[in-house]
Amino acid sequence: MENEKILEETFDETLDRVLADIIALIEEKKYRTARDTIINELHNGADIAEVMESIIDKAGIERAIIIFRMLPKDILAEVFAYLPIDDQVNIINGITDKEIQFIMDEMDFDDMIDVMEELPANLVDKILEKTPKEERRLINTFLNYPDDCAGSIMTPDYISLRADMTVGESLLYIKKVGMDSETVYTCYVKDKGRKLIGIISLRTLVISDDNAAVGDIMHDDYVFVNVYDDQEEVSEVFKKYDFLALPVVDKEHRLVGIITVDDIIDVIEEETTEDFERMAGILDGSDKEYLDMSVFHHVKTRLPWLMLLMVELMITGVIITQFEEMLSKVIVLVSYLPLLMGTGGNCGNQAATLIIRGMTVGELEPSDAFKVLWKEFRVSFIVGLVLSIINIVKILFIDRQSLIIALTVGASMLIIVALAKIIGGLLPMGAKKIGVDPALMANPMISSLTDMVSVLTYFFLATLLLGI
Amino acid sequence: MENEKILEETFDETLDRVLADIIALIEEKKYRTARDTIINELHNGADIAEVMESIIDKAGIERAIIIFRMLPKDILAEVFAYLPIDDQVNIINGITDKEIQFIMDEMDFDDMIDVMEELPANLVDKILEKTPKEERRLINTFLNYPDDCAGSIMTPDYISLRADMTVGESLLYIKKVGMDSETVYTCYVKDKGRKLIGIISLRTLVISDDNAAVGDIMHDDYVFVNVYDDQEEVSEVFKKYDFLALPVVDKEHRLVGIITVDDIIDVIEEETTEDFERMAGILDGSDKEYLDMSVFHHVKTRLPWLMLLMVELMITGVIITQFEEMLSKVIVLVSYLPLLMGTGGNCGNQAATLIIRGMTVGELEPSDAFKVLWKEFRVSFIVGLVLSIINIVKILFIDRQSLIIALTVGASMLIIVALAKIIGGLLPMGAKKIGVDPALMANPMISSLTDMVSVLTYFFLATLLLGI
Repeated sequence: MENEKILEETFDETLDRVLADIIALIEEKKYRTARDTIINELHNGADIAEVMESIIDKAGIERAIIIFRMLPKDILAEVFAYLPIDDQVNIINGITDKEIQFIMDEMDFDDMIDVMEELPANLVDKILEKTPKEERRLINTFLNYPDDCAGSIMTPDYISLRADMTVGESLLYIKKVGMDSETVYTCYVKDKGRKLIGIISLRTLVISDDNAAVGDIMHDDYVFVNVYDDQEEVSEVFKKYDFLALPVVDKEHRLVGIITVDDIIDVIEEETTEDFERMAGILDGSDKEYLDMSVFHHVKTRLPWLMLLMVELMITGVIITQFEEMLSKVIVLVSYLPLLMGTGGNCGNQAATLIIRGMTVGELEPSDAFKVLWKEFRVSFIVGLVLSIINIVKILFIDRQSLIIALTVGASMLIIVALAKIIGGLLPMGAKKIGVDPALMANPMISSLTDMVSVLTYFFLATLLLGI
Repeated sequence: MENEKILEETFDETLDRVLADIIALIEEKKYRTARDTIINELHNGADIAEVMESIIDKAGIERAIIIFRMLPKDILAEVFAYLPIDDQVNIINGITDKEIQFIMDEMDFDDMIDVMEELPANLVDKILEKTPKEERRLINTFLNYPDDCAGSIMTPDYISLRADMTVGESLLYIKKVGMDSETVYTCYVKDKGRKLIGIISLRTLVISDDNAAVGDIMHDDYVFVNVYDDQEEVSEVFKKYDFLALPVVDKEHRLVGIITVDDIIDVIEEETTEDFERMAGILDGSDKEYLDMSVFHHVKTRLPWLMLLMVELMITGVIITQFEEMLSKVIVLVSYLPLLMGTGGNCGNQAATLIIRGMTVGELEPSDAFKVLWKEFRVSFIVGLVLSIINIVKILFIDRQSLIIALTVGASMLIIVALAKIIGGLLPMGAKKIGVDPALMANPMISSLTDMVSVLTYFFLATLLLGI
């Protein structure tokens, strides 16, 4: 029984249990035992990094650094690579230059570049001072690629072969240089001018005859990206072709690096977060996490949009002012205002979200505008009719208002739903057409716009139908 | 010059140009030339599938099928696998049983299962009839795994080794069975009872001594998932550990399949779409694309939420009714209603989106509620104060209203922003705590709630300050 229970313990439970033990040990200042517990209970860098993160949270960065420095050298760099960037910078500030140098040397090149990008300039200089000249030049090149381009996420660690090598020679060569598993599975064939002329998978090498020439069995018709291509485009290529890695070339078609699928998953995650935030009216650009961001930073990312949207909402206020006389005569109209504005906003956002998503996954193009218009028109007619009838019945029999009020609200509902769906459907397409990120055209932009439209429609119809 | 231009043609431009040629050829009924154009200009299944999709759109499914059947046999299944599910079903309905059988035999097992899941039962039976008994049983097992679980996205195609094999024997074995590149890079070591006892990468095999025993160099401390684990959990594991493939075991720890990273990218895409839709109040579950979904289906996914939210909006209406007397006396109050409701909704949604994203990427837990509360409280105080001051100034000097009106709106703004941020911050956490998807607690749920809160706050303060 007891045994079975232990077997069924999930990974998360293991981590929680180990963490509780470690925190207790640290509090008793038994750092060595805490270190041993980590090594014995956890078996890979990602898990140890997760526990380290919690130690930093719960026991403070100073104590966490004591533990970190006691970890075996062979896993130190891996654990470090898995930590969030903030914790990495904090650790760097708490360890010796020699230890920094060691970690940087041991890390994968692309992970190291990610860390260097976040470090203060004087620390970067100090690290570069002690780096061999050739590597220093490479690091500087990589640090200079703009954020969000293919160059910023690629790694220069790849297996490079020549077309005149045999399969046997290639396998021996791979055995000799022996790289990380994430980068070894596609090998790149270059000519003497460092131009990429073909790719060949480790699988093909393993299953081919040892005497075959690489040049004869390689793919010379491969997909590649350019070093300044946007990382979002690169992730589209990965999604389409199901690749494990993709070569990156410069404008002379020289191979400058490769991008591996694990880094693309991070890009997808990052771009998704960006879309979510833009759709909610949050300006960001930092990859900091919620709790790590200062109050001032939070304000800075949220306030500008709120102020911009407030201008739109003020215009809606001005529209209402124009109808004040009518409203004061039939004050009951005000109580249906949130219903109409709210439903308009909701309808607009449903349509906008579907269209934005359709464009993100590549189904819809701005040229599909007429198809979208026609679909949204029919959908909104049915939706509007149902909502309209429900409201007319409710206003007549529950609110016990006059037929003319019920009809005003009902007719407004029908028109508002249609207009909101059309605005929500077409605005993101228009944005894309003129080169603006469609995600900016979702809630709350749509809500503010539909608010205006809703108020105008409702009060205009009221004036007409009520004859005031 | 001319040459350079051709060299610089992007992939998309190539596809567009080829497509235009092909459509023209089809219209002239030159099917054979159209086929040759496809084969000569496009060189991989994904690109051909993309062009086929456009042919279906532009020339109709019947003509597309004519072209499809003329494609070389060796790429037929690959092209088919890359098509969207709807087009696959349409093609299946237009080709002979023998052709269906051929394609099914040639496809990767996991792709074939995906197609079978969408086919009508009688067609599935017909295909199974002609399948060898052993494979039929396997297909049936796979078809029975619930959607969204690890079993539904795994493939039974993997390389399986024994611990007592040498590296040399293993490489020869891999050479013999020669599999797809996506599945070959991690090999799985099983004992006699089919239980998974270790994993070993092709990289390790290639760089190790030929005489080493697999059992000595394999990892026996690997990460795995269970066959009924949710696919979202599986994608978390991939994100955390940067794997290319992950073994799937049943409750006896027997290896039943593997999941590869390319399928995980699809899962991430699918789950992201689901989150976006839920956050916009769209109920879905189908993986159909926007234009492929019927008008009725669109109505069905959107109307229920709209009606639910309408109830909340009606409550806001009832609240307003309670203040009608006051409103009719100071009708100008109505013109600031959209501003306060809209800003409340926007603030609530900013907070909710940040919290939902934080929980999705694993940064925030419901136990962080107090930290979130404290952060949102400080952010909202600053944001509220700025917005409040802007409005007071505007109402006094542009609208030229009385000080008391300006103060009512300003004070309401401050309180509404704070309440909205707190509602937006805590509601998604509460939802997760009780096991409801937090994504449902974003806009428009938040907007409807903040509407109520905004109206109550505003009118309550007005009654107090204006003394009516």
